Amino acid sequence: MSADEQNQSSLKTRLNRIIFGYDTRAGRLFDLVLIHAITISVLAVLLDSVSSINEQYHDFLYALEWGFTVLFTLEYGLRLYSSQKPGAYARSFYGLVDLISILPTYLVFLFPGAAYLIVIRILRVLRIFRILKLMRYIGEANVLIRALRQSRAKIFLFLFSVMTLMIIFGSLMFVVEGPENGFTSIPASIYWAIVTLTTVGYGDITPHTYLGRGIAALAMITGYAIIAVPTGIISSELITEHQRMSQMEKADARKNPEPKAAGDIQSLCCRHCQHAGHDADAHYCKVCGTALAR
Amino acid sequence: MSADEQNQSSLKTRLNRIIFGYDTRAGRLFDLVLIHAITISVLAVLLDSVSSINEQYHDFLYALEWGFTVLFTLEYGLRLYSSQKPGAYARSFYGLVDLISILPTYLVFLFPGAAYLIVIRILRVLRIFRILKLMRYIGEANVLIRALRQSRAKIFLFLFSVMTLMIIFGSLMFVVEGPENGFTSIPASIYWAIVTLTTVGYGDITPHTYLGRGIAALAMITGYAIIAVPTGIISSELITEHQRMSQMEKADARKNPEPKAAGDIQSLCCRHCQHAGHDADAHYCKVCGTALAR
Amino acid sequence: MSADEQNQSSLKTRLNRIIFGYDTRAGRLFDLVLIHAITISVLAVLLDSVSSINEQYHDFLYALEWGFTVLFTLEYGLRLYSSQKPGAYARSFYGLVDLISILPTYLVFLFPGAAYLIVIRILRVLRIFRILKLMRYIGEANVLIRALRQSRAKIFLFLFSVMTLMIIFGSLMFVVEGPENGFTSIPASIYWAIVTLTTVGYGDITPHTYLGRGIAALAMITGYAIIAVPTGIISSELITEHQRMSQMEKADARKNPEPKAAGDIQSLCCRHCQHAGHDADAHYCKVCGTALAR
Amino acid sequence: MSADEQNQSSLKTRLNRIIFGYDTRAGRLFDLVLIHAITISVLAVLLDSVSSINEQYHDFLYALEWGFTVLFTLEYGLRLYSSQKPGAYARSFYGLVDLISILPTYLVFLFPGAAYLIVIRILRVLRIFRILKLMRYIGEANVLIRALRQSRAKIFLFLFSVMTLMIIFGSLMFVVEGPENGFTSIPASIYWAIVTLTTVGYGDITPHTYLGRGIAALAMITGYAIIAVPTGIISSELITEHQRMSQMEKADARKNPEPKAAGDIQSLCCRHCQHAGHDADAHYCKVCGTALAR
Repeated sequence: MSADEQNQSSLKTRLNRIIFGYDTRAGRLFDLVLIHAITISVLAVLLDSVSSINEQYHDFLYALEWGFTVLFTLEYGLRLYSSQKPGAYARSFYGLVDLISILPTYLVFLFPGAAYLIVIRILRVLRIFRILKLMRYIGEANVLIRALRQSRAKIFLFLFSVMTLMIIFGSLMFVVEGPENGFTSIPASIYWAIVTLTTVGYGDITPHTYLGRGIAALAMITGYAIIAVPTGIISSELITEHQRMSQMEKADARKNPEPKAAGDIQSLCCRHCQHAGHDADAHYCKVCGTALAR
Repeated sequence: MSADEQNQSSLKTRLNRIIFGYDTRAGRLFDLVLIHAITISVLAVLLDSVSSINEQYHDFLYALEWGFTVLFTLEYGLRLYSSQKPGAYARSFYGLVDLISILPTYLVFLFPGAAYLIVIRILRVLRIFRILKLMRYIGEANVLIRALRQSRAKIFLFLFSVMTLMIIFGSLMFVVEGPENGFTSIPASIYWAIVTLTTVGYGDITPHTYLGRGIAALAMITGYAIIAVPTGIISSELITEHQRMSQMEKADARKNPEPKAAGDIQSLCCRHCQHAGHDADAHYCKVCGTALAR
Repeated sequence: MSADEQNQSSLKTRLNRIIFGYDTRAGRLFDLVLIHAITISVLAVLLDSVSSINEQYHDFLYALEWGFTVLFTLEYGLRLYSSQKPGAYARSFYGLVDLISILPTYLVFLFPGAAYLIVIRILRVLRIFRILKLMRYIGEANVLIRALRQSRAKIFLFLFSVMTLMIIFGSLMFVVEGPENGFTSIPASIYWAIVTLTTVGYGDITPHTYLGRGIAALAMITGYAIIAVPTGIISSELITEHQRMSQMEKADARKNPEPKAAGDIQSLCCRHCQHAGHDADAHYCKVCGTALAR
Repeated sequence: MSADEQNQSSLKTRLNRIIFGYDTRAGRLFDLVLIHAITISVLAVLLDSVSSINEQYHDFLYALEWGFTVLFTLEYGLRLYSSQKPGAYARSFYGLVDLISILPTYLVFLFPGAAYLIVIRILRVLRIFRILKLMRYIGEANVLIRALRQSRAKIFLFLFSVMTLMIIFGSLMFVVEGPENGFTSIPASIYWAIVTLTTVGYGDITPHTYLGRGIAALAMITGYAIIAVPTGIISSELITEHQRMSQMEKADARKNPEPKAAGDIQSLCCRHCQHAGHDADAHYCKVCGTALAR
């Protein structure tokens, strides 16, 4: 390895720690700047769609947009360059989000007809999650995600039952109320059933006959009562998760009475593929096999 | 028993395993084909009710409907034939649903006036539950159904109290607001009370007097607060159920201390360091980083 | 005591068991007839308020109403006669409901101007609770009521905080949106805030300015998030109640291993003042001191 | 210290106990008077904003307002005077609320143009919390606040995810429905998404295309399902808090085995059979039927 290559390698490592990590001062500063840049650029997309603002500040917003696009393109390039496995990064969820965040501006420049693509830039907001993931929210998110994963079969079953109810209530109302009262087709009636069972209740389609109102009342009470089911599922799962964690902590405390080194938890997010949620005793990322730095 | 009878008997048994079972490859394939056929036929019923689609693709949808009806009739016949007790099957819930799924098409063919019967075909969607039941969702559903059954007296009491509240609030508003503000009768006012207490809030009937708005505000806060009751009931029941199941598992573990033979769990043991207990989504051993064979 | 007096006394006791009790065949039949009479008379009040039905069946409904009024008056008289302490019965909650259920018909007959009093008859629906109380729902209701009573300070605090939020959001919107957008006064704006925070959302008053919509969005997210608080309170209280009951049952089982006599639970409702919720070891009603029959 | 100074000091201490405390008869009376004065003055602000009432009773409400302002100014002065550290009190949350409650009336008197400032007086309602805090609700509030604080990271994460969903759904609907269906800009579409996901459902902006209705249905079901998450979080936290408190109580009981001296509990012991442990609402001994002396 020549001195030049060695320099480059150490630069890559340093960049990697700053861009992907959170344990250095520069890395934290980088994330802080990034989180503000993302927020401002998303706000710019929002304001750009308001016609009165668009007319007045069009040039300023256009310049801002190109500024952020160039900045994010630079960031994307550095991420590709400093990543240990650039291909894996580019194909990962956050790699794709990073690409999608900058692509629309270039595409609309090249093909001016595709102006609606601009809206895709709003997905930049997803990039904030990566930064949150690195921060203190990682542990909390894991408990939540594990509880949701544990209960996904029950939730799926619940949603499937609710959708069946929606189809049956919708079809019934199509027959009872009919097109003359706004229930123009079964899909439209199912849309009404969804609006009603979820207790949203726009009021754009409402029953007018006595029988229709009776069925609607039944649908509302059903919707009101069954919301209790997913809530119960997730509550019970979270409590079970809580109890398991406190038991594990007790067991850990018995085995290793000395306190753990601080900074332990944040390094359990894989620097390479950003997969979080590794067990406390894991030494290698269970998704990509990279050694977990501690 | 003649050879022919024996052949027939073995055919019946084979058919029974394929149609009603889920443990053979052919049985799983049959269920997969059936689940898709049901979904497409339900979608066809939905689209058929949209007048613009009906006009354009009427012939195609009509042919599709007859195709599915013949297919489901054949399936119904095979179920009756291969069932050990055809009478019991025919009178069972799913037997009736199977019959109801095919009957409307024939009836409308015979009595063209009864076109609204066509909508009954939508109940085909219920047939999907039988297939889900056979699959992995069975255990989850049992916990849910047991919890709901345990709490049915409390839920009934809650619903009865809510309905009493709805009747009282509705009658009160009929007196306070009266027909000139849309509260045309007590049943209509009760309909308003249901729309309000379940927090659906269409806005097709709304109070206009100060006193009426005050009572409506009271009804809303009541509805908002009491939704907590069924949720609490089901949460507490699910947690109790959870704890009972985990105690049963512990009791089981004490009785049979040898590990279970489930091949699934065994393969999550690392070939290199023999570390077991990896998560279901792990691809690499979390201790030594070796790829996990599956 | 003369033979006549003795006869009368035994008649009173028998009537008391039939009318207030649930443990004889005649008592159950009486309750069954009563529950149907109440339901039909409430339905008659509902239908009577629908103008099209009122015009057509006025005479029939009027006759029905007088029939039920005479029947319920007779029942009220028998309750007063057979009660051990008629004064206590007349002043009890159900005694008042019984009186209120029959009074309006007589009052309107005497003072035809007070026609709106008729609606008060709807309170008959409350009488069904007495019958439910005697039936199997008694135990369930006690758990629910105890949990609600345990958490009433927390619920009050929550409702007070929510109302403060409603007042503040309402006043804010009155300033921001103003009378020209439907927010005509602070009470009207608070009504809007209640409609919004409880997620009812009629849509009769909606914000139109950008700032107003922003504040409304904040109010909605607040309302959506804080519904979790009372639900959490009641869930946690119900689970605690559950655990205490199962511990009490275990403790009881250790002390008295012989099974309890069936019918134990229903007799824990005081025959005299209808107070339910006596402890399992109570021999006398804690409200009126009457011996509890077992 | 001169006699005069000593007198003043003892006056200050006595005033402090009355104004800030709740343990003297005068202190409780002071709080009772204050809670009524606050409620009436808030009601006056509410009624003052109703134009029909304002026109008729303007002079009376104006006089009332000045009366309360002088009263509250006096109270503020006494609080400053009797406080041990007047500066700390003035900068505390309740000190600021006390100042804000009286300032607007003076400011509007000085600068008549700033009439909208009057609405700020509504913040007086916050002053009631200080009094509640002193009363029995303090313990309950602590449990609630601790549970909410424990779960604030999870709640923040949930709200951030929900807001991301709202931004994405809103932008999608802006593209699909467009300005011609009321989705005039991305902020307006996000407002629609908030109205829909929180299940408020005003109906002021509703989808009209098939695709738009499909996406709206998805948003509703999402909103309906994810409300379960914060509820589950708070339930689980409250239960954990409950269990920790009951364990602490047990630990306390082990340390101090002698019974507490609370006279309250002792009087619930029957004079006749000495049975203790009667419920708080018991009037008669549940063992022997003797009236319980209180």
